[in-house]
Amino acid sequence: MENKAFDLETVSLDDKNSALVILDQTLLPNEVLYLHLTEQADIWEAIYELRVRGAPAIGIAAGYGAYLGVKNSKATDADSFYKEFSEVKKYLASSRPTAVNLFWALDKMEACLLANRGKSIPEIKEALRVQSEEIKAEDIRTNKAIGEYALSLLQPNTGILTHCNAGTLATGKYGTATSAMYLGQERGYNFKVFADETRPLLQGARLTTFELAQAGVDVTLICDNMASTVMRNGWIQSVFVGCDRVAANGDTANKIGTSGVAILAHNYGIPFYICAPTSTIDMNTPTGWDIHIEERNPDEVSKKWYEKPMAPETGVKIFNPVFDVTDARFITAIITEFGIARPPFSLSLKEIFKKKKDAGY
Amino acid sequence: MENKAFDLETVSLDDKNSALVILDQTLLPNEVLYLHLTEQADIWEAIYELRVRGAPAIGIAAGYGAYLGVKNSKATDADSFYKEFSEVKKYLASSRPTAVNLFWALDKMEACLLANRGKSIPEIKEALRVQSEEIKAEDIRTNKAIGEYALSLLQPNTGILTHCNAGTLATGKYGTATSAMYLGQERGYNFKVFADETRPLLQGARLTTFELAQAGVDVTLICDNMASTVMRNGWIQSVFVGCDRVAANGDTANKIGTSGVAILAHNYGIPFYICAPTSTIDMNTPTGWDIHIEERNPDEVSKKWYEKPMAPETGVKIFNPVFDVTDARFITAIITEFGIARPPFSLSLKEIFKKKKDAGY
Repeated sequence: MENKAFDLETVSLDDKNSALVILDQTLLPNEVLYLHLTEQADIWEAIYELRVRGAPAIGIAAGYGAYLGVKNSKATDADSFYKEFSEVKKYLASSRPTAVNLFWALDKMEACLLANRGKSIPEIKEALRVQSEEIKAEDIRTNKAIGEYALSLLQPNTGILTHCNAGTLATGKYGTATSAMYLGQERGYNFKVFADETRPLLQGARLTTFELAQAGVDVTLICDNMASTVMRNGWIQSVFVGCDRVAANGDTANKIGTSGVAILAHNYGIPFYICAPTSTIDMNTPTGWDIHIEERNPDEVSKKWYEKPMAPETGVKIFNPVFDVTDARFITAIITEFGIARPPFSLSLKEIFKKKKDAGY
Repeated sequence: MENKAFDLETVSLDDKNSALVILDQTLLPNEVLYLHLTEQADIWEAIYELRVRGAPAIGIAAGYGAYLGVKNSKATDADSFYKEFSEVKKYLASSRPTAVNLFWALDKMEACLLANRGKSIPEIKEALRVQSEEIKAEDIRTNKAIGEYALSLLQPNTGILTHCNAGTLATGKYGTATSAMYLGQERGYNFKVFADETRPLLQGARLTTFELAQAGVDVTLICDNMASTVMRNGWIQSVFVGCDRVAANGDTANKIGTSGVAILAHNYGIPFYICAPTSTIDMNTPTGWDIHIEERNPDEVSKKWYEKPMAPETGVKIFNPVFDVTDARFITAIITEFGIARPPFSLSLKEIFKKKKDAGY
């Protein structure tokens, strides 16, 4: 049986390189609908409305979007072509103004254009197409490398807990936290995965269970507050999560609830692993205390998804932080595409960046 | 300003002692509706459908229900009156066949009847009414005593975290875990309470925030997975929860998620208190491992309250345990109506029962 994980496409160009194809994640898990988007306004809306989500997937979508935005340009000289591209770039960048990967991908596309501006317009267009595909290919290589390192830490027939969605749906493919699960599935590791539902936005329930089930992985959904019980029952041998930002000392910001899972794992003697592409490690952020934690609309807690409000409308405050910070001391290792960093992270993360530099990045 | 906590009536007899008055908890927090129930079938349904919930509140409702069930009896001799009572008892006992407090209250009513069977039928009826009120009064005394002991551990202007609903809505009044919050509110302690929403049934979001807000207590709702963050932020100085069963060694079964909160509190150096009427302490259960943990319908996790299913309908398992067990080593103290038990609980709980016996119970 072929592994269906590798059939699930989060974001891609269609066969004719003329449309952005996105699995609409706002409809999951109830409907699997692929959108074929050609208009810039539709691509902008898909990013804005979180039809495509997850930092790497947004970056990939933006790269493709930038290519499609100038693919049919009638410009005949590099200057006017660049001007058109700049408009497209500015427009797409406004779709998620806090998404770092969005800007990173658009900057990469711009650099490609500028590096090729001496060439003919059709040649520049082709270079942009190749660059947009390379953004995705590089993400997939990164995730696969993380998965191989992660898999080297795992035994067959073990239980893995994950929180939120750092999966294929958030990336080009494989995901970060899920990468070892897919590689293990391919190689008969027979993992039993437990997915925290991840309140309030339920990325675990809606997305992680969906994509793991698609690939035939044995997956069990639990409420966030059941993690302690499945660990106590001896069902969990390791925890894998993604991250939004890793500080220089190893403190890690990730989806709200991650720090609690890390503390529970520490208590039960279960290794807790952060899967972190080096792009998410910020050596200029000394510790987790230097990471600002954004709060979102309280209605996400009391109203979103529900038929009726689940908390009194007056007299009750609601606290809704998006991320939390996991202290480095609860992290067994940080797994990157250039190897596994172990405590003390202030040293081992530097080693990772040295390896990256040595590899020519 | 009078404290509104004391105006909230979960379950009571009406002024004419002719109807059971129940705040319908299935409609909270969106509607405050008091049901006036006179028919046995309606009282049965209110217990069965969880319109009244929480072990003590169910016991109180059953006591009143048993009284109302024979109040208008036309029996003229004690034997036929007792026969009628036995039918009522059997019927009410079938409404929640696993609720220990239900049987306890009905047995108490039966014992009252038997103790008074030499008297006239009107006198027996009056004795039953007094007994039913005494069941509630005793619960309130118990909760108030727990609250006073708990309050002795607290400083004004501090933050308290609670999980699930062990409040007025689950009891005759005051609740167990919430009792110190209400007594503190009355005395200007200015507590800041954080309520875990308590997935999957959301008792914290729907009930705890409602009753604390009614009493004017400063209350903030969080998702269960945010407990680590509010502790890390320094906002929590103590945790108070109720319990379903305490084992002889202090291990405690309570609503799913409690053990995780206890481990987090332990990690952050925050005292974690169990509020336990002695009726919930079972010295015949050696440890938490001897407590059977019931599982409920998986749909509670994936479908209940939601407009649409929040997990794939196929290919995904769901684990939905109702309770978890908190290891005694994470419990700072167990607060009962006869005093505060501290580790080692195998000794201190025995002391509590000695005090209870000495008090004539």
